[in-house]
Amino acid sequence: MSKTYVIVGGSAAGPKTAAKIRRMAPEAEIIMIQKGKFLSMASCGFPYFVGGVFDDPNQLIATPTGAQRNPQFFSDVKNIKALTSTEVTAIDREKKVVHMRNLETGEEGVQHYDRLMIATGATAIMPNLPGKDLEGVTTLQSMEDAIYLKERLTSGSLKKAVIVGGGLIGIETCEALQLGGVQITVVEMLDQVLSFLDWEMAKHVENHIRSKGSEVITGCGVTEFLGKDGKVIGVKLADGRVLDCDLAVVAIGVRPNSGLAKAAGLEIGSCGGIKVNTFMQTSDRDIYAGGDCVEVTNLVTHQKMTWPMGDAANLEGRVAAQNMVLGNNVEYDGFIGTGICKVFDYVAGSTGLSEKQAKRLGYCNIMTAVQAAPDRPGFMGARPVIIKLVADRTTCRLLGMQAIGTGDVSKRIAIGAMAIHAKMRVFDLVNLDLPYAPPFSPAIDNFIIAAHVLQNKCLGRMEGISSLDVKAKLDAGEVPFLLDVRSPEEFMQMRLGIGEVLIPQEKLRFSRDKLPKDKDKEIIVFCKISLRGYEAYCFLKSWGYTNVRVMEGGILSWPFPREK
Amino acid sequence: MSKTYVIVGGSAAGPKTAAKIRRMAPEAEIIMIQKGKFLSMASCGFPYFVGGVFDDPNQLIATPTGAQRNPQFFSDVKNIKALTSTEVTAIDREKKVVHMRNLETGEEGVQHYDRLMIATGATAIMPNLPGKDLEGVTTLQSMEDAIYLKERLTSGSLKKAVIVGGGLIGIETCEALQLGGVQITVVEMLDQVLSFLDWEMAKHVENHIRSKGSEVITGCGVTEFLGKDGKVIGVKLADGRVLDCDLAVVAIGVRPNSGLAKAAGLEIGSCGGIKVNTFMQTSDRDIYAGGDCVEVTNLVTHQKMTWPMGDAANLEGRVAAQNMVLGNNVEYDGFIGTGICKVFDYVAGSTGLSEKQAKRLGYCNIMTAVQAAPDRPGFMGARPVIIKLVADRTTCRLLGMQAIGTGDVSKRIAIGAMAIHAKMRVFDLVNLDLPYAPPFSPAIDNFIIAAHVLQNKCLGRMEGISSLDVKAKLDAGEVPFLLDVRSPEEFMQMRLGIGEVLIPQEKLRFSRDKLPKDKDKEIIVFCKISLRGYEAYCFLKSWGYTNVRVMEGGILSWPFPREK
Repeated sequence: MSKTYVIVGGSAAGPKTAAKIRRMAPEAEIIMIQKGKFLSMASCGFPYFVGGVFDDPNQLIATPTGAQRNPQFFSDVKNIKALTSTEVTAIDREKKVVHMRNLETGEEGVQHYDRLMIATGATAIMPNLPGKDLEGVTTLQSMEDAIYLKERLTSGSLKKAVIVGGGLIGIETCEALQLGGVQITVVEMLDQVLSFLDWEMAKHVENHIRSKGSEVITGCGVTEFLGKDGKVIGVKLADGRVLDCDLAVVAIGVRPNSGLAKAAGLEIGSCGGIKVNTFMQTSDRDIYAGGDCVEVTNLVTHQKMTWPMGDAANLEGRVAAQNMVLGNNVEYDGFIGTGICKVFDYVAGSTGLSEKQAKRLGYCNIMTAVQAAPDRPGFMGARPVIIKLVADRTTCRLLGMQAIGTGDVSKRIAIGAMAIHAKMRVFDLVNLDLPYAPPFSPAIDNFIIAAHVLQNKCLGRMEGISSLDVKAKLDAGEVPFLLDVRSPEEFMQMRLGIGEVLIPQEKLRFSRDKLPKDKDKEIIVFCKISLRGYEAYCFLKSWGYTNVRVMEGGILSWPFPREK
Repeated sequence: MSKTYVIVGGSAAGPKTAAKIRRMAPEAEIIMIQKGKFLSMASCGFPYFVGGVFDDPNQLIATPTGAQRNPQFFSDVKNIKALTSTEVTAIDREKKVVHMRNLETGEEGVQHYDRLMIATGATAIMPNLPGKDLEGVTTLQSMEDAIYLKERLTSGSLKKAVIVGGGLIGIETCEALQLGGVQITVVEMLDQVLSFLDWEMAKHVENHIRSKGSEVITGCGVTEFLGKDGKVIGVKLADGRVLDCDLAVVAIGVRPNSGLAKAAGLEIGSCGGIKVNTFMQTSDRDIYAGGDCVEVTNLVTHQKMTWPMGDAANLEGRVAAQNMVLGNNVEYDGFIGTGICKVFDYVAGSTGLSEKQAKRLGYCNIMTAVQAAPDRPGFMGARPVIIKLVADRTTCRLLGMQAIGTGDVSKRIAIGAMAIHAKMRVFDLVNLDLPYAPPFSPAIDNFIIAAHVLQNKCLGRMEGISSLDVKAKLDAGEVPFLLDVRSPEEFMQMRLGIGEVLIPQEKLRFSRDKLPKDKDKEIIVFCKISLRGYEAYCFLKSWGYTNVRVMEGGILSWPFPREK
């Protein structure tokens, strides 16, 4: 007799589980129960719908060939019974049934299961602040939210908006609304946007957002939404400032929907997500779970965390389905923490640990390298990419990588993600055979160059200092000898103006009298990307200077205001 | 006392070695001797210069900040003495000197070395055919060649050209000249272009080239260049055909320039390249070598081969330099065989072994998977990518990957290259955490979906057949039941017309009477990309059909003419 599979949730992990069960068990009964109106919603696409990349919301639920993924589609094509606007209110594990209610008709029902999948997702967090129920205060989580934002944008009723939260969704929403002509302020409580980046990398992203005309305020929370006639007219910040606006989009994160599982007595993890093993099985052997509502393992830190990402949800659903049908036979080991975000014509991505995360986790012997370079030869229209690598100094294993810039960041993050998945060490990365041709990369790919910098540091062939640490020194009143080795023409066009001395690299050998007399004087040397800076460093060391460092990534990695 | 380093060759491996030696040994004497006129020539950029992506040839020798890499630059900036138009005629290993001659003045000289680097590169092969010395018969190897082609193209004197050889440079040159309005025929002796691809993948590339207006002839060699008044007017093929033309570009490969090393008694490998160990050291401990003139190890096959690629040359030079200065301390283990080629708005790439190469090498138990899918969601402007994976069935280790299409192929090849470098197995690839956001990939990246297909085949959950094997069956007169499960609308727009029966996937369960009565009848099922095809396969298997296979990659992977 064929089994009955019930799936609670119809967004990402749910439909993937249902479809995979169907392929594994063509005769089984499969019922998918979705609380919302829509199924298989590509919610990651909301900002692009709002921003006008496309205008038909049906594209968000379309298959690659254009079919709409509605209950009829699931029934006809996949023989899956899909109920929408239907909430599962309780799981009776003893009787192996779920209780449900149709949210439109109020009708209640009971459904038996042999195996149950919980894919209830997560809910956007709305802070309990005064004014949160005003019209115009919204999240961007549902199709309804997306349509509301798009209508506000296209109706012309929107002049100023505040985005509360500078994470992935906040930044993507900023881009969408800004491109629609709205004056935007992003307010982030932390001291930077995109917390998967290190501070100095995030500052470049903030600078880019500002260059597009939006405002970014960091290190300041929101205390109140101000209203008039029931509509939002402003946002009050913790420092007392008031930002006028006619829309406030709150994007400060999500909370796993684990209440149903908890009420049924299933184990819940310390982050509030449902506990599952690597088979995606909960503490009840007949109940599996996946997607934003569960906790999975970070393969770098070995910690259990929620990881509310669309790609992970699909992979988890695929694993759960195979195990639900055949018994536990395939595993989802976990994620490494890869994220990417388009920011206008800039891209910011990260995989594994940032330096900040690694330090917070107690890695005390880490090594970093920052490298800035064009992503292909100049004659092919080079665009810059800044890469930061984070490695464990003891094992030389790569722990994390960040990349930002207008160049091809996505490929470099993918390369870094593979290196971290495969637990590769710095020395495994210096001679990679990557796809090289002028339209795609420089002769030595940016990722490999970054690995070379890290290797040089590992082998003691280069001592580096981050732009952040240089700034901190200056702010603390220190006066290192700052040496810019670019050409006078470059210096005229762009310069830091932090007291640096200009000695072009080719003049350096003949200008030793311009260098400090004291061989122990601290010298910090740089150029545009610090390749010439590194060459100058080598000369200085050979002349007996003992305290020389290269400012890694050069002027391109300087996230602070420049003189010019 | 500081050492003297002599580098023979100034294109890629040579300048990289010289620059790295300078960083390792700031006080050393470094002399780089180049036979040609130009240094650090980005020869991979020639096709893009010819094709008009940029017009100033100086960009090919410019640093990222625009400085020209001429002898003055090397002297001023890097304190490297660079001699151009100077040929090293002999190496006297006993006296540790090289003999050289200035090709412009005829002046001869002798230069002592403590350590010598041989980076003499390779020479484009010109077959010894009648007419090879006619004006208009050329290779594309030197700056002079590139300028000649560009002048011919811009002067309007060029109407028809024949490209002899369908490898990377041949295809890139085809694109360059075709975009300039020249009528092109590519003639390839093998039965396909781009030999790093399997036949059926190459056929897609050939179809794309033809769709741009160029002709491609495979399986036919050239026997003669026909001339009039000393100028080429045609190319004669082995089958007797004559192609009129006023230019013939020969791009059939390169031969390592190992003569100098051989004459000095250094060991030469079986492919004609200089033998080196992983330190890039020749059989003489004071002589190192790198770049197109050496043999290095293919890390997948463990065979020594020449690998004349610009990226490898740079990496080898960097390793050689470190060992020349400090004694052997870092290694270049080898390459895995990664290549990529822009073909108009199409990209073709490969890493590791193709199926054909694997079979030729005696891997008898290999497994492949072909998968076609959009490279991002439809609403973000999806473009197709076809991926083929090749794995060892016994170890499940990935041996190779190919990708073609108008989508982001470069990223997927980079991912595959990392998997091969790290010796990852199919099961390591099914749950990768890659950078996902709608502008960059579908929720499950194309590479991961391809790994899923391979996993399904590994686990016996899917049996596949390539479009190539389907065609072979039909050509042999077999009549399998061919089942297309797309919609009638899709069928009207595009179809193979090979006798297939259309039963839309959603009708299949109610159309069992249209299927063969004989449960052992061979059935081959497909759709556009064979995702629905796979679902139909699962149904058919569950109904007791014993001989069902999915045509992998679906209609998108069919490289032969279609009815519509």
